[in-house]
Amino acid sequence: MRRIKLTIAYDGTAYSGWQRQEGCVTVEETVADAIGKLTGVKPELIGASRTDAGVHALGNVAVFDTESPIPGEKFSYALNPFLPDDIRIMESEEVPETFHPRFDAHRKRYEYHIVTGAVCSPLDVRYAAHVRGPLDIDAMNRMAQYAIGTHDFTSFCAAGAQVKTKVRTIFSITVSEQDGKIVIAVTGDGFLYNMVRILAGTLIQAGLHRFEPESMQAIIEGKDRALAGPTAPANGLRLCKIWYDNGGNEE
Amino acid sequence: MRRIKLTIAYDGTAYSGWQRQEGCVTVEETVADAIGKLTGVKPELIGASRTDAGVHALGNVAVFDTESPIPGEKFSYALNPFLPDDIRIMESEEVPETFHPRFDAHRKRYEYHIVTGAVCSPLDVRYAAHVRGPLDIDAMNRMAQYAIGTHDFTSFCAAGAQVKTKVRTIFSITVSEQDGKIVIAVTGDGFLYNMVRILAGTLIQAGLHRFEPESMQAIIEGKDRALAGPTAPANGLRLCKIWYDNGGNEE
Repeated sequence: MRRIKLTIAYDGTAYSGWQRQEGCVTVEETVADAIGKLTGVKPELIGASRTDAGVHALGNVAVFDTESPIPGEKFSYALNPFLPDDIRIMESEEVPETFHPRFDAHRKRYEYHIVTGAVCSPLDVRYAAHVRGPLDIDAMNRMAQYAIGTHDFTSFCAAGAQVKTKVRTIFSITVSEQDGKIVIAVTGDGFLYNMVRILAGTLIQAGLHRFEPESMQAIIEGKDRALAGPTAPANGLRLCKIWYDNGGNEE
Repeated sequence: MRRIKLTIAYDGTAYSGWQRQEGCVTVEETVADAIGKLTGVKPELIGASRTDAGVHALGNVAVFDTESPIPGEKFSYALNPFLPDDIRIMESEEVPETFHPRFDAHRKRYEYHIVTGAVCSPLDVRYAAHVRGPLDIDAMNRMAQYAIGTHDFTSFCAAGAQVKTKVRTIFSITVSEQDGKIVIAVTGDGFLYNMVRILAGTLIQAGLHRFEPESMQAIIEGKDRALAGPTAPANGLRLCKIWYDNGGNEE
């Protein structure tokens, strides 16, 4: 058996998220089907990030084990013809059988894109949330600084999430204007369920001057989801990149 | 009767182009239907650019005449709820009844977007053509210089187009890298049928070193469609802006 690592990009619009669910079209199931068509065996996939319905990815990561003789780096080209246009295998490689895409990930980058004009352009509507601005980018950046570092992010975790600890480390958050859109870029060692969307929703409140930037400290310390802002819509979120010590994908 | 000018953006993916055709879903028909639902009368629209199937627009322009009492600038907000997400009225205003969106246009800007990586990201595939690169941007810019100015662009006009003259003026063409994509931006006083897509297809040939940049001069002078490169795919093209002396939309 050989373990193959896939770097997967997708437009999440048409999918009920990454993870297989009965009766739903998911990215995981669609990729597993394509591998089945290519190799004759539909595998179990282990994914790095269970992105939600409607969330996009430029570089989610998954592995599967196979007896296929196809060279690791050729799976990308071999699988893409079996996939719809809105899912692409950007890269593939063989990795050690001990490589685990979730446990071995030590850094992830997400971006949240926002359009603030009066009307959202149809060329942005799939990939950005629409917030009638203006948004105060300075205020958003000031608020973001309080979230950087190692904190208990209970206030930024959707109810019902079952995890051992809600402590995570955010390495950086930047809010900037790019090509007419406001982009929140967050890099951390890992993220709780809905954490980036709740962070984005809270920063948007600061941008609209509904929350003081300094309130972020109390929101974090309160460890109460009700203190933070609303969960921002899924379509604005994209998983950009996952970093590993081994298994490639280094910057 | 009052004449209302609409600035219309659309994702052309789902449409058989701008112009009404029996049995096809077109942008013109969809907008006319929305106006009918809002005002009770489905109008004739006069459009500025009959974009092809799959071509996108950030600022196509159309007018219609109406007895509706809705203020001109309010039509944008009033119409958008009657339109699908992939068509938006970005702006609206009342214009003189003599205003004609095609005859009064004196300048148009198109962009052609190209992804050159080994695999085209699903977040780009709707709005950019995929050309396995690399593309030599310098060579493309050198070729483009020969097209600037007033020329007979017969070599860049799809067969069957019936127009009085194929002389057009290109004010500028630039080829640049933007956010990982190659963008060809063309501004001119008007464009023949498929002209920007044939220009893009020809510049791509220079970028791939299949055509010499200097060959552009002979291609133009030859007045023969067969001399130019292939028509680049529709999805890479977007109509960005149309300028008028009157009727607003000045830069």
